[in-house]
Amino acid sequence: MARTPTVAFLIIGNEILSGRTRDANLPVLAEALNQAGGRLAEVRIIPDEPPVIIATLRALMEAHDHVVTSGGIGPTHDDMTTDAVAAALDLSVIVEPEAARRLRAYYPPEKLNDARMRMARVPQGATLIDNPVSAAPGYSIRNVHVMAGVPSVFRAMVAQVAPILGGGPPTVSRTVSGFAPEGDLAAALETIQAPHATITVGSYPFLRDGRVGTAVVVRGSADEAEALDQAVAAVHEAFKALGVDATEPAS
Amino acid sequence: MARTPTVAFLIIGNEILSGRTRDANLPVLAEALNQAGGRLAEVRIIPDEPPVIIATLRALMEAHDHVVTSGGIGPTHDDMTTDAVAAALDLSVIVEPEAARRLRAYYPPEKLNDARMRMARVPQGATLIDNPVSAAPGYSIRNVHVMAGVPSVFRAMVAQVAPILGGGPPTVSRTVSGFAPEGDLAAALETIQAPHATITVGSYPFLRDGRVGTAVVVRGSADEAEALDQAVAAVHEAFKALGVDATEPAS
Repeated sequence: MARTPTVAFLIIGNEILSGRTRDANLPVLAEALNQAGGRLAEVRIIPDEPPVIIATLRALMEAHDHVVTSGGIGPTHDDMTTDAVAAALDLSVIVEPEAARRLRAYYPPEKLNDARMRMARVPQGATLIDNPVSAAPGYSIRNVHVMAGVPSVFRAMVAQVAPILGGGPPTVSRTVSGFAPEGDLAAALETIQAPHATITVGSYPFLRDGRVGTAVVVRGSADEAEALDQAVAAVHEAFKALGVDATEPAS
Repeated sequence: MARTPTVAFLIIGNEILSGRTRDANLPVLAEALNQAGGRLAEVRIIPDEPPVIIATLRALMEAHDHVVTSGGIGPTHDDMTTDAVAAALDLSVIVEPEAARRLRAYYPPEKLNDARMRMARVPQGATLIDNPVSAAPGYSIRNVHVMAGVPSVFRAMVAQVAPILGGGPPTVSRTVSGFAPEGDLAAALETIQAPHATITVGSYPFLRDGRVGTAVVVRGSADEAEALDQAVAAVHEAFKALGVDATEPAS
């Protein structure tokens, strides 16, 4: 059985930390990893400050199989990711010929100023990740995958890199929901979780139409189908013992 | 001039990393800190795994003035935050008498089972943070502030703790938006940023009604009003030089 690689997601951007912009990319990456057989193990959100980017990248590259970054690869002065990635890896930055060619093909000559040409710069040895939306590519270098923060571009880039980030069995997630408060289910859920080291049983309260309910999420790898089935059946029983009909929405 | 304290936000929850649930609390904390004069310096999202929680807490407590956590303080087996906080601080966990009193007042006796009583457990010496929504409190211990992940509860808890997390001048953010691509503005924005070490000029592209535009965000502390005014005026000039009327929406 293939081991499931761990992936860290590094979101680089003052606009997220200030509360101005809400990140939309995390769920896209998480869902791609579930399907590709990778695991999102950690997310960090940091400001556009080169020393912070460099130190964080080094820590994450060491701790995880892969690091995906978003943000900071545009044309303006606050786009600092490429220089920081190169510094973290002790590499120089070059103008990548194919990236430059794509920018020349995309922009009319009078628009291709020095600022936009910055988007052809990559750490030496990087492999380009295509940008079908707006030309300026991302890239992979060693175990770091540098992507744009713009959601439509990020999504297209993740789709290309996901097979590299995964390789383990896909993760299966099944949700059993019912109108019982989680405090009433707690003892039963602990008993269901206890024998399973590799399956997780999560409990998430919700309020709907003024009624309190709990969504119980059973997650595990696709090659543990039998244990997943057993755990899901036991969760249904736990609701039933409280006189509650639980449902399992298609997911 | 008071120094602006740095705050790290630690989001504890498998449901965020799996992509199932989207965090809604970051913008609430960020906005509260902007007003209270604190700075959100870093966010980490980690799984419900005690060794990870303990190591991350220790690193963040050391690196920042304050750490705010969300998630993992409910009644079920996957709520591991309190034990991990206590372990990170080498403290024992006690049943806090006032927290227990609040739970007894909130739940009918037959509902107050062992699982729900877990929500009265805190590291020894903690100060409670009120939960006006569903009784079970958060708490502060040293520079760590432990809050619920449920957004309505998180918001109420942040409102109480924000004055402690701040104390510097409030952060002012002004946005100048116009239909010019950021690559056309890049050189001017770099010139506007250059003389200001404490003000940040951020550039964020957008697509609206099929047209490309840029939101330029000028941020700084409220006691630098004059420098902020100058930078904002210069951004308007930069748009005007491209023949674009920029607007500054009230914020």
